[in-house]
Amino acid sequence: MSASIHPAGPHPIESIVVTPVAFRDLPLLNTVGVHEPYALRAIVEVTTTSGFTGLGETYGDAPHIARLELVARQLVGVDIFNIGELRRRITATLRGDTTRGGHGMSGMVTGSSTPDRVLSPFDVAALDIQGKIVGRPVSDLLGGAVRSEIPFSGYLFYKWAGHPGADDDAWGAALDADGIVAQAKTMVDAYGFSALKLKGGVLAPEQEVEAILALRRAFPDHPLRLDPNAAWTVETAVGVGRALEGVLEYLEDPTPSIAGMAAVRREVPMPLATNMCVVSFDDVPEAVREGAVDVILSDHHFWGGLRRSQGLAAITETFGLGLSMHSNSHLGISLAAMVHLAAATPNLDYACDTHWPWKLESEDVIVPGVLCFDRGAVAVPTTPGLGVELDRDRLAVLHEQYLACGLRNRDDTGYMQSIRPGYELVSPRW
Amino acid sequence: MSASIHPAGPHPIESIVVTPVAFRDLPLLNTVGVHEPYALRAIVEVTTTSGFTGLGETYGDAPHIARLELVARQLVGVDIFNIGELRRRITATLRGDTTRGGHGMSGMVTGSSTPDRVLSPFDVAALDIQGKIVGRPVSDLLGGAVRSEIPFSGYLFYKWAGHPGADDDAWGAALDADGIVAQAKTMVDAYGFSALKLKGGVLAPEQEVEAILALRRAFPDHPLRLDPNAAWTVETAVGVGRALEGVLEYLEDPTPSIAGMAAVRREVPMPLATNMCVVSFDDVPEAVREGAVDVILSDHHFWGGLRRSQGLAAITETFGLGLSMHSNSHLGISLAAMVHLAAATPNLDYACDTHWPWKLESEDVIVPGVLCFDRGAVAVPTTPGLGVELDRDRLAVLHEQYLACGLRNRDDTGYMQSIRPGYELVSPRW
Ligand SMILES: [Mg+2]
Ligand SMILES: [Mg+2]
Repeated sequence: MSASIHPAGPHPIESIVVTPVAFRDLPLLNTVGVHEPYALRAIVEVTTTSGFTGLGETYGDAPHIARLELVARQLVGVDIFNIGELRRRITATLRGDTTRGGHGMSGMVTGSSTPDRVLSPFDVAALDIQGKIVGRPVSDLLGGAVRSEIPFSGYLFYKWAGHPGADDDAWGAALDADGIVAQAKTMVDAYGFSALKLKGGVLAPEQEVEAILALRRAFPDHPLRLDPNAAWTVETAVGVGRALEGVLEYLEDPTPSIAGMAAVRREVPMPLATNMCVVSFDDVPEAVREGAVDVILSDHHFWGGLRRSQGLAAITETFGLGLSMHSNSHLGISLAAMVHLAAATPNLDYACDTHWPWKLESEDVIVPGVLCFDRGAVAVPTTPGLGVELDRDRLAVLHEQYLACGLRNRDDTGYMQSIRPGYELVSPRW
Repeated sequence: MSASIHPAGPHPIESIVVTPVAFRDLPLLNTVGVHEPYALRAIVEVTTTSGFTGLGETYGDAPHIARLELVARQLVGVDIFNIGELRRRITATLRGDTTRGGHGMSGMVTGSSTPDRVLSPFDVAALDIQGKIVGRPVSDLLGGAVRSEIPFSGYLFYKWAGHPGADDDAWGAALDADGIVAQAKTMVDAYGFSALKLKGGVLAPEQEVEAILALRRAFPDHPLRLDPNAAWTVETAVGVGRALEGVLEYLEDPTPSIAGMAAVRREVPMPLATNMCVVSFDDVPEAVREGAVDVILSDHHFWGGLRRSQGLAAITETFGLGLSMHSNSHLGISLAAMVHLAAATPNLDYACDTHWPWKLESEDVIVPGVLCFDRGAVAVPTTPGLGVELDRDRLAVLHEQYLACGLRNRDDTGYMQSIRPGYELVSPRW
């Protein structure tokens, strides 16, 4: 906190800068295609007239950036402590924007609420500034940290050895059970994760069952999760669920839709989790009524930021649902926000997902050194705000990369089709 | 904020003082008896080692005070920003305390959660201190005020002219429709309320219908509510509901239990509200499943404080339920807390209840002048914390009154029986 500025003073928003960035990504496979050579994000910088700056990070797809720019103009002048007013203005500005999804299937999230996706980075940036103004970490503004370090799961992917036409990457190929186990060993050795998640929906279900069983043998004590992104019919999902009885911590989105999930849930022994059929507050009542899921993967990027995500936590606690945390490819601002939210959410029941290991350490927009993995967990920053600082040189590099890479929307399917012309999007695939 | 103390802290709790108080109350009638000559409350003062003090106000019944004292010892040393840790310790300390209710039927709240009732004043006091430390009003710590003044409803009661053996009070008797209309006119003249609520369950249902219709004629534009505290059978409730079609804003707790409310709701045209069948997070799933209610009356005194009440608001918004606010007899600390919560709750859909007009202006524990009714509404304080200050002289007077009055538990029924020996508690009564 600047010694000359009193926190009680007005702190209206003076300006908002949205900077699209691209960072290198690896050819990670999923049921709708393969990750492109670059992942897109948008960095949101909010500045108050009192001279404080806060950070948010969100999706980098073009329509989303257009919405960020549209609402940003409406937020100037709002006091930085008034997140309710930010939400009101965003909702009003986007009235009539009936798009659902936005990054759609290829982002592995379907039909989330547009105002909540747009609100998210402004909520995070506002809390970052509030924390800086009052000299407290964001976790304190969310009710206080009930844990000082946040466990994450190691996120395993089938992958090619490298992007077509490029050299093999450091991780190399993982296209069968042995490859996945080797990848898991490398990742656990480097990060210390004590839970593991496999992104499925890529190979035939029997092969993915085999991979999970191989992981179980190699990691007898690690909770294991499998997430095929709704690639299976109800019948296939039930078969996989039964084959993996006693092996999975939870089975994530085995099949599409609330009705489908409810049908699977009646027949399989393990908890069912989702970040696809319950992705907005509007989805919750039907999911509860139908008994569709046991665990909701929260994600502050589409649940309206950190404060709204706490509302989701109240809902899952009240309705006896488990709470975990979803991740897309992300940078350090998002990781910091995830960590603060997780710290202040007593009923977060599971290690959080993160794509962190798939990112080059050299590519980020924050000053390095704050967020480190130790035994699979990240210590919650205790410095004011999010506890991370924008590195303008690194931001400039990733923005240049955005301008140069030519990608403007995540499109795993299109990229796959450019490599394998016969590739088709089929749902469910098996 | 003290200039010499940095908000970055630490600000651990050093001491907690719980002071029971009694303030004069009037012979307000309800379906379980009549208000005793004194209402009981407990004032909670929390002090940090850094020298900040925060205030909470809660029930003054003896078993509740014993729990407050019990947990207070466990909270020393907790950082004042860590409400999550306060909750964890309170829940742990009260594990094994299976009492539900606590102030039971005579408090017009049934079966609320003991840890949430106990947490509430500490949550409020913590937010009061946080606000003082950082120089911001509590509403800012709850996400920001979306309204600057909070509308309240005028709370009408059938009443005797005075307590037996005492002089008539300033309000006089109200024992029929004319008496209620006269009371309403006095109250609206004095406070400017633009909504009215009648506490029913006292006279025969036909007479209470008559009173509501008389209010409608006298106040054609005021939203009207009727709350018989579950005094009626389903059949009676349906009859009243149909008789008041188009007249009531909502009908509150016409009949006991979630099942009973659901049965009534299927047959009456107006929304049904409750602060009796949904009084804790545990009650919510069944109420949603059975379609028992349209509106939940929140009350931070039994929903676990201000932050937990925001969780309730997220639930009602998500499930398409209305949100209103309940009141017991209370003093200024509670009013301040209610006002900050209401300010920061976008989906608060109704004017809040308050017993405020029934309290002598001279009797309170805060320095007067901050919380004033203008056109039925209270302006949200914009000074740090709750914005109210303890008046130690007034606190001492009300504590002396507590010691002298001899009441240790609210008992509307026992008091009524002491006056009318044949009086019996019957539920439902009609
Ligand atoms: Mg998933
Ligand atoms: Mg009531």
